[in-house]
Amino acid sequence: MEPEKLTPWYVLRSPEIGRPFQDFYNASKSEGALDTKTKELLMLSLSCVFRCPHCVESHLKAALEAGVTKEEITEALLITAVEGAGTQLNWAKEIYLKYLGINDRVAVTQQ
Amino acid sequence: MEPEKLTPWYVLRSPEIGRPFQDFYNASKSEGALDTKTKELLMLSLSCVFRCPHCVESHLKAALEAGVTKEEITEALLITAVEGAGTQLNWAKEIYLKYLGINDRVAVTQQ
Amino acid sequence: MEPEKLTPWYVLRSPEIGRPFQDFYNASKSEGALDTKTKELLMLSLSCVFRCPHCVESHLKAALEAGVTKEEITEALLITAVEGAGTQLNWAKEIYLKYLGINDRVAVTQQ
Amino acid sequence: MEPEKLTPWYVLRSPEIGRPFQDFYNASKSEGALDTKTKELLMLSLSCVFRCPHCVESHLKAALEAGVTKEEITEALLITAVEGAGTQLNWAKEIYLKYLGINDRVAVTQQ
Amino acid sequence: MEPEKLTPWYVLRSPEIGRPFQDFYNASKSEGALDTKTKELLMLSLSCVFRCPHCVESHLKAALEAGVTKEEITEALLITAVEGAGTQLNWAKEIYLKYLGINDRVAVTQQ
Amino acid sequence: MEPEKLTPWYVLRSPEIGRPFQDFYNASKSEGALDTKTKELLMLSLSCVFRCPHCVESHLKAALEAGVTKEEITEALLITAVEGAGTQLNWAKEIYLKYLGINDRVAVTQQ
Repeated sequence: MEPEKLTPWYVLRSPEIGRPFQDFYNASKSEGALDTKTKELLMLSLSCVFRCPHCVESHLKAALEAGVTKEEITEALLITAVEGAGTQLNWAKEIYLKYLGINDRVAVTQQ
Repeated sequence: MEPEKLTPWYVLRSPEIGRPFQDFYNASKSEGALDTKTKELLMLSLSCVFRCPHCVESHLKAALEAGVTKEEITEALLITAVEGAGTQLNWAKEIYLKYLGINDRVAVTQQ
Repeated sequence: MEPEKLTPWYVLRSPEIGRPFQDFYNASKSEGALDTKTKELLMLSLSCVFRCPHCVESHLKAALEAGVTKEEITEALLITAVEGAGTQLNWAKEIYLKYLGINDRVAVTQQ
Repeated sequence: MEPEKLTPWYVLRSPEIGRPFQDFYNASKSEGALDTKTKELLMLSLSCVFRCPHCVESHLKAALEAGVTKEEITEALLITAVEGAGTQLNWAKEIYLKYLGINDRVAVTQQ
Repeated sequence: MEPEKLTPWYVLRSPEIGRPFQDFYNASKSEGALDTKTKELLMLSLSCVFRCPHCVESHLKAALEAGVTKEEITEALLITAVEGAGTQLNWAKEIYLKYLGINDRVAVTQQ
Repeated sequence: MEPEKLTPWYVLRSPEIGRPFQDFYNASKSEGALDTKTKELLMLSLSCVFRCPHCVESHLKAALEAGVTKEEITEALLITAVEGAGTQLNWAKEIYLKYLGINDRVAVTQQ
């Protein structure tokens, strides 16, 4: 990801809030507790879930440039998929167990 | 995350689809291209975004047990926040630029 | 689902918009092209995805009362899970294929 | 939906997790407690909610091929809309009632 | 927003539910407790969050026609972004505080 | 909304990114192009859509304290509902029209 040279539209139109957002975003990209590879993988998965095509492409490129392999990226996307599935079954598991549980066997959720 | 000993309700009620889901989930947890720490961080962030309290708690515990520090976890959650913000501004940036752009200056999006 | 006897808060506070919403909701419950069982299964799955615990419980009860079996309900929830997974891999598949595709084999998405 | 002849990119790049996902997806498509028509309607509604254009088109075609009528499909999409509305008013109804309730009349939520 | 002259597809295919939805939608656009400018800003932000490009463009145009300034619109979109961020940190704050809290200082969430 | 006196957990654990987020959040609350009433209504609707109970309660209280009436708040929540419905029918309207359109009449979407 090359250094930003131009000012985004939201900073031009609303510098009072747009600039603090930009500072927040820039801070999240700098080296911290997590390394760049892990951060880009996280950002890619989240861009996917938040349905942002520009962000997906941007973070996919940035991840590859940071040295993340295609196998690691694919695995991250499959983990995104498995959470997209498992959370449907677990967020309301008390309700599911109350109405769909099986009395004569102990039924627990997996995740 | 201790080994699963009991059969989940969805496997008991619908083994034809429930068992393949369980295999998919178990496969995603095993060592692969990504190490366990990275996977748990990813799963935690995604559980957060998918609004699954049980999953958040489960992956938070699993991440700490895998040796992820509280600082790394907090950073992952802040990256989740920054993507939750930035994707609002970037998924439809062509539309925003078309109506809100500034003619006499070059306005580009940041992400 | 027993007949509604009391007026919801949003109708009391905003009858101009609240009443038309209530008419819309009531219309969706009456027999139409789809039978009650199919409608309740749909509403249950959607309540799950929209993260509404009250709605999940309400539609789960209504589905059981309409004669939907626990096996059918569980299958509907697993279909909710599989779409929660598959859509992560398919909504942006052009981008994935562009960066993660494999040249010497034809790689297509499944769904 | 014609039989899949080619291997998806995520199976080629990550067979350890990609293949179990594919098995899960294939299992969800086979005849079970729910018939194909009901499954395709469910999958269509969910593809819509999960904002996956490829999936919407794929399931719309599959539903029509399975004999679902255009009237049934439209009704399913309107049920998706009514849940998209109603869940906004019901997921946090305790909070709404606490601050917006009307003392001199009993106000309950509809759904 | 000019008066609607044509009947939408969902009313043509399913008048029993499609027409009540249309009445609900039309009711929400008429002058009520909130003025048109506030309503269009709300609808724009929500269209953004619900990832509907047609709706974003439609409400952006309607907001500008209603006299909302580009600065107000940009601020609304940045508020959409800040809620997209802050809600990730606050919806499960009890869990975060339980595992990530700091004993020797009082840590509270901001929002 | 009273002035924040305590440091949130995410600032304590990750000041490098947590502090810029806090600055961004604080900037969004200060008077700007939009007045406090409009901002709180927006934040309430968005907190609802992002499924954050703490945020909904916080912004509901802040809106009432800022002088927003219960009728205005209810209308904002009903607008949230109508967008939650309408966006399901409009985000993919080309696909819907292609497969569900009616040839002998001009069918357009409403929104």
